Amino acid sequence: MRFSSDIQDLVSRREKGKSLEAPFYNAPEILKLDVEAIFNQHWIFVAVEPELPEPGDCITVEVGRASILLLRGDDMEIRAFHNVCRHRGAKLIDERATTIGNIVCRYHGWTYNEDGDLILAEHMGAGFDKSCHGLKAVHIRSIAGLIFICLADEAPKDIDEMARVMTPYIAPHDIANCKVAFTSDLIEEGNWKLTMENNRECYHCEANHPQLTVPLSEFGFGFSPDEMDERRSEDVKKYTNAVENDHKRWESCGLPSAEEDHLSDVTGFRTMRLPLMWEGESQTLDTKVASKKLLGKFTDPKLGGLSFWTHPNSWHHFMSDHIVTFSVLPLSADRTLVRTTWLVHKDAIEGEDYNLDNLTQVWKMTNQQDADLVRLAQLGSEQPSYEPGPYSSFTEPHVEAFCDWYIARMKQHLAKGKSGAATK
Amino acid sequence: MRFSSDIQDLVSRREKGKSLEAPFYNAPEILKLDVEAIFNQHWIFVAVEPELPEPGDCITVEVGRASILLLRGDDMEIRAFHNVCRHRGAKLIDERATTIGNIVCRYHGWTYNEDGDLILAEHMGAGFDKSCHGLKAVHIRSIAGLIFICLADEAPKDIDEMARVMTPYIAPHDIANCKVAFTSDLIEEGNWKLTMENNRECYHCEANHPQLTVPLSEFGFGFSPDEMDERRSEDVKKYTNAVENDHKRWESCGLPSAEEDHLSDVTGFRTMRLPLMWEGESQTLDTKVASKKLLGKFTDPKLGGLSFWTHPNSWHHFMSDHIVTFSVLPLSADRTLVRTTWLVHKDAIEGEDYNLDNLTQVWKMTNQQDADLVRLAQLGSEQPSYEPGPYSSFTEPHVEAFCDWYIARMKQHLAKGKSGAATK
Amino acid sequence: MRFSSDIQDLVSRREKGKSLEAPFYNAPEILKLDVEAIFNQHWIFVAVEPELPEPGDCITVEVGRASILLLRGDDMEIRAFHNVCRHRGAKLIDERATTIGNIVCRYHGWTYNEDGDLILAEHMGAGFDKSCHGLKAVHIRSIAGLIFICLADEAPKDIDEMARVMTPYIAPHDIANCKVAFTSDLIEEGNWKLTMENNRECYHCEANHPQLTVPLSEFGFGFSPDEMDERRSEDVKKYTNAVENDHKRWESCGLPSAEEDHLSDVTGFRTMRLPLMWEGESQTLDTKVASKKLLGKFTDPKLGGLSFWTHPNSWHHFMSDHIVTFSVLPLSADRTLVRTTWLVHKDAIEGEDYNLDNLTQVWKMTNQQDADLVRLAQLGSEQPSYEPGPYSSFTEPHVEAFCDWYIARMKQHLAKGKSGAATK
Repeated sequence: MRFSSDIQDLVSRREKGKSLEAPFYNAPEILKLDVEAIFNQHWIFVAVEPELPEPGDCITVEVGRASILLLRGDDMEIRAFHNVCRHRGAKLIDERATTIGNIVCRYHGWTYNEDGDLILAEHMGAGFDKSCHGLKAVHIRSIAGLIFICLADEAPKDIDEMARVMTPYIAPHDIANCKVAFTSDLIEEGNWKLTMENNRECYHCEANHPQLTVPLSEFGFGFSPDEMDERRSEDVKKYTNAVENDHKRWESCGLPSAEEDHLSDVTGFRTMRLPLMWEGESQTLDTKVASKKLLGKFTDPKLGGLSFWTHPNSWHHFMSDHIVTFSVLPLSADRTLVRTTWLVHKDAIEGEDYNLDNLTQVWKMTNQQDADLVRLAQLGSEQPSYEPGPYSSFTEPHVEAFCDWYIARMKQHLAKGKSGAATK
Repeated sequence: MRFSSDIQDLVSRREKGKSLEAPFYNAPEILKLDVEAIFNQHWIFVAVEPELPEPGDCITVEVGRASILLLRGDDMEIRAFHNVCRHRGAKLIDERATTIGNIVCRYHGWTYNEDGDLILAEHMGAGFDKSCHGLKAVHIRSIAGLIFICLADEAPKDIDEMARVMTPYIAPHDIANCKVAFTSDLIEEGNWKLTMENNRECYHCEANHPQLTVPLSEFGFGFSPDEMDERRSEDVKKYTNAVENDHKRWESCGLPSAEEDHLSDVTGFRTMRLPLMWEGESQTLDTKVASKKLLGKFTDPKLGGLSFWTHPNSWHHFMSDHIVTFSVLPLSADRTLVRTTWLVHKDAIEGEDYNLDNLTQVWKMTNQQDADLVRLAQLGSEQPSYEPGPYSSFTEPHVEAFCDWYIARMKQHLAKGKSGAATK
Repeated sequence: MRFSSDIQDLVSRREKGKSLEAPFYNAPEILKLDVEAIFNQHWIFVAVEPELPEPGDCITVEVGRASILLLRGDDMEIRAFHNVCRHRGAKLIDERATTIGNIVCRYHGWTYNEDGDLILAEHMGAGFDKSCHGLKAVHIRSIAGLIFICLADEAPKDIDEMARVMTPYIAPHDIANCKVAFTSDLIEEGNWKLTMENNRECYHCEANHPQLTVPLSEFGFGFSPDEMDERRSEDVKKYTNAVENDHKRWESCGLPSAEEDHLSDVTGFRTMRLPLMWEGESQTLDTKVASKKLLGKFTDPKLGGLSFWTHPNSWHHFMSDHIVTFSVLPLSADRTLVRTTWLVHKDAIEGEDYNLDNLTQVWKMTNQQDADLVRLAQLGSEQPSYEPGPYSSFTEPHVEAFCDWYIARMKQHLAKGKSGAATK
């Protein structure tokens, strides 16, 4: 596992239709390469705009070993910088979220403005050139309020395509007029790819997510036609009709709903508006809206759930009354942060328009259930008897799509001759 | 330490009569090789049959990075399998002990029967062959109720010899009609070999184990003849006579008692029935039996203590009224699990026939005292000034025998050209 | 980072005037080399004599992976030994401080006298030669009561020069007649070099150490002449005069006060007696003496603060009434122990002559403030965007001097062809 040739081998011999070989899930060397090849080269979902509503609002996110600060300026633009002083390298902002004027290093007072320019550095003498010591900028892009950053020198350009396709889907949910109702940071004891694989199928949902599946059809996430009897075939037909009818109704209200699959793009993603069954309105225990103040200009609570999945690290559910976003960030080969953010209309009042427990319960429970499954999968992958097993082509095609994308991106990276870095 | 040649050197240059060089006690690379060469290739003591008395009873044990599940079937046979689902590799049984029907994976419901056959896997489609996806079996062998497993493809055959020799010694204690009274898991902060070395001598007992040594003679574990005065010589003679008399008495009751030393076998072991002095009956603070219900068909409480030591990871003490077994499992180069199990007659009633504190106190205290010594030995071995020191040929011959066996097994393994694996 | 050539490169290409490259602050391989090249080869400050006032008093210190025991003998000499039994390598003294007769190993009773000679080892037989199994000695040197040890076979000889220069400075503070009033062990979450760099400048003091700086002039630790206006120039002149006057006064009382800079020596050090401004007497919140019993033969409380800084791991402040010493010991690449010891006159009575809170408050707070800055610097150095930044030639020359010394010592070590060891 020490030499890039080993990793190259592992990547090359990946068998289609099966889970990855064990080192992809537990070797620290591969986690290092994942950070380098995946998280440092692609657009990563890290936050939503309502986390920084006002000028001076600043949040920090950790991507791999990098700490990035996001700062909303007086011009209302959000900029991203590496969170490191250019003097002796102290971390600048230590808090997860704060409000600041300029960016002042606590160590020796070096001060940067909202553009990252160094504007004050005492005792450095007449010959010192401040203009060479500004903060290092990071690419940032907001898609209808969802903030993506890219740490690469050159960011993948097909973010434009994702923005073009997704903006009409997301915009009606009007993130700009949302507020953060709750954020949860859950550390899963598993590799980030196991977290993602878990998210990319609902084969495990019926047995493990009793709360989430209340308004979901068992046919919404694939099934084997070989195991159908007549009753089930009838049910499938009903479900297919329901989707068709809902999509027609929603599209006629200006809500794009059809599936869009761009999972092979560099900036890979997929979206679809899915019905919530049996008069369901939202992802709550009683399937009714959690917030009385509907989002944007919505008046109908029954808009199903718009799902938006991105490679490599996020998924999002948009309902008529609230939005839930998920950001996945690797902490080590076997620990992963899942940050979940619940958004409601900015005018919704807690206790009046919504109850926080009711809003968050389904996904808090579902996240915990998933964390437990991810932990078991990690524990299995660490055993010498583990070997890649077969994905179901009916219920796990998007797990396969995720692995395909991952392996393709790794190959691309290794071909660029950058693999050496991972063995340092 | 990175390359197998370094380890080969260390193994080759081992100096007889001395403790091992430091890396054997603290290098993670050698721990990895220990697992591969010792724990994955030999018969390892992991449990006693009374831990799984009924059909459906299931326990899990961790040997190196492997989790193994032991399941008693409806036919009362105990089988062992790798505890990993063949679908996406989730750990199947997460509990230390449970009772189950079939083995059902929590992730996607794949189901295996008690023979490890895959009997249910939904949505895999018509072409999927269940028979290729059964659980991976592990060798298992019970010697008069002591359960040994072997993870190797081919298990050492001389377990037959150990069974042949030991069954007559152990059988009268009738493990089949015992129950588990107590189990303790103690994590020692030292290498597993330091735990074993500590167990293989009683040179340290007098100063460190005031409770254990109450019924033990100071001459029972070796002494230097050069340091004897007349009084001590007299005492030795008395002790030797006591052993002789006890052995005669016990053998006449059908209890084999003589020392058997097979410490150089691949499945190395040693046994001996040792007197408990001064009218002692058992390993308790007052040296009297802890349980009124004697084991098997015993009527005489004064049967001394039958000790049974195995390479690489166990020792056992059988008295007239109870049994204590010890299983040693490495957790990392400097952490070791010592699992101790106390057995009494299955009809003995706690509070009436035995008091749990009285039963367990001597070995709980002794284990803790040993753990502290192992910790000090580990701390010393981690220091640059450590160098192998001399074993006493009078009091530490079995420590030497353990190290000889270990080094011989390592040489054998490295000669098989499998050493490469340790450097991966 | 695995091969010595990488480290050689890093050392060779160090850019003067800038902080070190990131691996110097966070690579475990370099920490290993630091221990080998710096802490195992140089004189390390570890204790003060009043920690072992009586015969039989024994303390232990951990330098890198080595545990060293310091023992005051019946002849009042302090000797230092590796804290490892020569039998099976157990750590001998497990306590931080204790009082003993001989040194007895708890494992098997091997016993060493105060010269480290093995005087008892039971059961080793007639042929065993005790004289070959004495404790391994460590170089030790007390400079006016400050105890330095050296783990190298041959210790740097220029400790003589440090003793010659420093004894007249320190002796009047009479450590022999001091007692330890308090000791604090603070673990900083940063590399030991960041702890040292932090200590070697006061550029950060004004913003971060409100308590420490009460009696300190902002000009005492350097300033850029380019940033002076007329008022500040006037203030500088006043401060320079104050230093001159104080030095004259102190020297006339037999207290050497002038700066001595030997920072390029192998046993590098620097000293200076600095004024405490505005009638200040000591490093306390109210700047008055903390202890009524002045040290040695002092009668004047206004003796400023004698500072003594040593490479690689200590600094010390001597006032008229108390002494504070600091010892820095690396625990890992990113964790460092700072041990602080406060000394007062041995006849000073707590509660009467001094109040412990008042005595320790300034440095307890200052240490914590520094620990926080070191943590931020460490967090920054671990980020991929970190790059060496410029030191101020006015306020950070001694940081530069520390880095110069460190790099020079590393070069010297690598040139000796010993670098191989670091890659093992």
